[in-house]
Amino acid sequence: MKTDIEISQATKLQNINEIAEKLGLNEEQIENYGKYKAKINLPMHTNKNGKLILVTSINPTAAGEGKTTLTIGLGDAFKHINKNCAIALREPSLGPVMGIKGGATGGGYAQVAPMEDINLFFTGDFPAITEAHDTLSALIDNHIHHGNKLNIDPRQVEWKRVVDINDRELRHTIIGLGGRTSGVPREDGFDITVASEIMAVLCLSNDLSDLKQRLGKMLVAYTYDQEPITVADLGVTGALTLLLKDAIKPNLVQTLEHTPAFIHGGPFANIAHGCNSILATKAAINSADYAITEAGFGADLGGEKFLDITTPNIGKHPDAIVIVATIRALKLNGGVNKAELDNENVDALLKGAPNLGRHIQNMKQYGQPVVVAINKFTSDTDNETKALDEYIKAQGVTAVNTDVWSKGGKGAINLANKLVKMCDEEHQFNPLYENNEEVLTKINKVVKKIYGGSKVELSSKAKKQLKYIQKHGWDKMPVCIAKTQYSFTDDAKKLGAPKNFTIHVRELQPRLGAGFIVVMTGKVLTMPGLPTHPAALDMDIDQNGKITGLF
Amino acid sequence: MKTDIEISQATKLQNINEIAEKLGLNEEQIENYGKYKAKINLPMHTNKNGKLILVTSINPTAAGEGKTTLTIGLGDAFKHINKNCAIALREPSLGPVMGIKGGATGGGYAQVAPMEDINLFFTGDFPAITEAHDTLSALIDNHIHHGNKLNIDPRQVEWKRVVDINDRELRHTIIGLGGRTSGVPREDGFDITVASEIMAVLCLSNDLSDLKQRLGKMLVAYTYDQEPITVADLGVTGALTLLLKDAIKPNLVQTLEHTPAFIHGGPFANIAHGCNSILATKAAINSADYAITEAGFGADLGGEKFLDITTPNIGKHPDAIVIVATIRALKLNGGVNKAELDNENVDALLKGAPNLGRHIQNMKQYGQPVVVAINKFTSDTDNETKALDEYIKAQGVTAVNTDVWSKGGKGAINLANKLVKMCDEEHQFNPLYENNEEVLTKINKVVKKIYGGSKVELSSKAKKQLKYIQKHGWDKMPVCIAKTQYSFTDDAKKLGAPKNFTIHVRELQPRLGAGFIVVMTGKVLTMPGLPTHPAALDMDIDQNGKITGLF
Repeated sequence: MKTDIEISQATKLQNINEIAEKLGLNEEQIENYGKYKAKINLPMHTNKNGKLILVTSINPTAAGEGKTTLTIGLGDAFKHINKNCAIALREPSLGPVMGIKGGATGGGYAQVAPMEDINLFFTGDFPAITEAHDTLSALIDNHIHHGNKLNIDPRQVEWKRVVDINDRELRHTIIGLGGRTSGVPREDGFDITVASEIMAVLCLSNDLSDLKQRLGKMLVAYTYDQEPITVADLGVTGALTLLLKDAIKPNLVQTLEHTPAFIHGGPFANIAHGCNSILATKAAINSADYAITEAGFGADLGGEKFLDITTPNIGKHPDAIVIVATIRALKLNGGVNKAELDNENVDALLKGAPNLGRHIQNMKQYGQPVVVAINKFTSDTDNETKALDEYIKAQGVTAVNTDVWSKGGKGAINLANKLVKMCDEEHQFNPLYENNEEVLTKINKVVKKIYGGSKVELSSKAKKQLKYIQKHGWDKMPVCIAKTQYSFTDDAKKLGAPKNFTIHVRELQPRLGAGFIVVMTGKVLTMPGLPTHPAALDMDIDQNGKITGLF
Repeated sequence: MKTDIEISQATKLQNINEIAEKLGLNEEQIENYGKYKAKINLPMHTNKNGKLILVTSINPTAAGEGKTTLTIGLGDAFKHINKNCAIALREPSLGPVMGIKGGATGGGYAQVAPMEDINLFFTGDFPAITEAHDTLSALIDNHIHHGNKLNIDPRQVEWKRVVDINDRELRHTIIGLGGRTSGVPREDGFDITVASEIMAVLCLSNDLSDLKQRLGKMLVAYTYDQEPITVADLGVTGALTLLLKDAIKPNLVQTLEHTPAFIHGGPFANIAHGCNSILATKAAINSADYAITEAGFGADLGGEKFLDITTPNIGKHPDAIVIVATIRALKLNGGVNKAELDNENVDALLKGAPNLGRHIQNMKQYGQPVVVAINKFTSDTDNETKALDEYIKAQGVTAVNTDVWSKGGKGAINLANKLVKMCDEEHQFNPLYENNEEVLTKINKVVKKIYGGSKVELSSKAKKQLKYIQKHGWDKMPVCIAKTQYSFTDDAKKLGAPKNFTIHVRELQPRLGAGFIVVMTGKVLTMPGLPTHPAALDMDIDQNGKITGLF
């Protein structure tokens, strides 16, 4: 069996100018980055107004759901039914690429390419965000070092540093040691780049002016008098914006079947809003009849945030929602060990199915047409497939079997046909909450209506932060809940569809640039670590530049 | 008077494909990065064997010497005398761009373009080096965290982390705090990216295989038993090489007069060898009749290192050497305050001239033809010009007045004509030392024959390191002396041409990948700080992407 990278390397790609032409973009409207990548010049002058399809999933498991693979294969399927389609996806983060097997470019015959480039530095967006973030860090500490006119409390610098690497060693640090010429000693820490507020800001900005305004508003520290200090206070809004002048332009690549794919931005879906940039989504909508986008992790995280945070910023809600599930993942939710997933087990499947059921009902609440895509694995049995079909039907939605990993676009033709019909249905969008509701009300609505929990408990720190947020009038922003992706609860080990649980809020972080309040729950980390055997150990490149070991 | 960026923005550039054509490179041999930048695919298939001209200078001063500007203007001058020429330069480091006024793209009418891109992320080479460096850091700490099979002593991890930012706050840190799930507590620190050994390795590699072999050799730590640990021992050579697959390709841009310029790599000239990549220099030699390259800082640092470290790696020595000087800088060397540089002062000029004199004699030692370029400033008087001309003549070399800042290539036609003649002269290259000499002998030769000092003093740490280096057979490598750029001595305040001084060696660092021993002297820092008023404060970008405040 060929590996993903072998399949990718064996495919003859079209020149990116040809891909751009399919979208009505000529050579002057794009900037080539080699032969197979381009950035889109802004503003984009195309005049489509395509339908928007959101792909989300059940809670991710170790069994793998293949959501990105499905999104890519679905994009290719539209070509097979003679419909014009563009995909919008997030960019992979290098940290996980080096850490655990798996970039974010799909798999099998449903991939975006060139995967080696997309999974590494691509067009330099993440490095630009890292540099902008850490330049701001250096400017804050430099301000304190040179007299501290703004009266910043070094114990209350909220702006941590970032690297695009899984580096647990940098989670908690002491910096500024070495005497008076080397800064002011203080505690600090590093997050992974995708957790940077700049990543969220970039993904939510509609243009360069919007980006600049948002960057200026970012809260970075408090004074000794508990007054907030922003980027604008430091006078470096222009410099940060300038560092992001190219990063804000969406990137264009193609699938192995030459469907256009905008890949841009990559905020984490637990600690940020978890969707590709709205500029990429808008680019897809404005240049194709069908635009497909994917939200990170399960529908409780990326899906909810797409609908409550991203949708208002795009100014358009999805016309249809796809929930991806696999029989293996649901069996795991039903209590089967990973090692025994190959054995038929209808009971466990039905025991785990309520995880899918809750996601279905959650998405239906928003008033959008919902369909479930069952991503086929060779271990699936007829009995299992039949049982799951019936379960899904009982939830009032349709299940469509897909097999894009081995068949590419052909493996999702039925799903594409179904979606074309769904997108023409009349429907009304029902937001989960209004921004002018109380912060606690907004959190409670997500916890009770989406997670299925019964209670929200704030730490004493979070209670204090809530008062501060209210005092400064920042409470009218949406809430961005940071929670483990593996469970509806804030405990990664509680699979399935638990009930009567409490969500523990440990911190509330106002993100004034992104325009939401991050609600930190449970033990969510903003800097992952590398495993015992990192993927980096198996990577290689020969003298001709041929890469192996990248997934 | 127009600013540099205004002059640059007002110039209509040629498409980079046209520039490549001048060098005999077709569209298949380059990778476009937008319309005005490209990377060169390796290996390069051109068949010129051009003359190599090295541009170096007196010790840099606050008055400014304009060495890069002269290099660029000189490249343009060759066009005016109908000679085919290509320039090879280093890439600017973002840290200084954000810190002190000044990228590294020349000035006035002698600039490389697009300066906004070159001064910011360009084609992503520095971010790739940063990421590769810090990925290695994370992999080292991850190895220690997960059982430490290699028995690495956390107190002896020699591989620090890097950021491409002037961030004094990160010079001395404690990392790995936060309990047993967050790594092993230890001391660490951050250098600026240009100080990374990976930067030196990239600049000295002849191809991807050479790069990989050098990366594998890099020394990163010692075991509890004092055994060296390399990248190859960690098993991550392939992963690091793969992260640099694009960074190793030279970048092509143009001057404002459309002369091809290869801009690639940027090691510091005090703590590393300080020249652009040898792949860029070779690209210029192999595709033009005259190749001009620049060495960082004064001839005592970049010049010496070009001749003793870079030349053997290129396999070709320069056919002529240009030393850039200005009357203002020499007056400053002669004791004039910066505020009084506009006033005529022949005495001070002649008092400072021996700084130039020593650099001339130093370069002549290598056996190459030497010429001095006097970069014109409006404050220069006729008396001063005449006095300096005579001083230089007495040194046995010619002085040529140049004015490329205001005239572009036309301002260096005389210099170009002179160089054409010089390059045809017969000459023999005399290396300063042989690699198989003793380490102390090599250091002494540089100190006595180049710096003009009388003695070398090793700290007790350096003495211990020397023994270790000898024991492991690493003593046959050239020495790369890290010294302040402002003085021939290791004290930045001693200008002019001091005599009878001691050079204090505080540390000897074997850089097995780069292939040299770094000799740390005086107080050289590997992480600069930002000034009280960083350049970042004055930068801006408007809604149309127009940048101001970048120099």
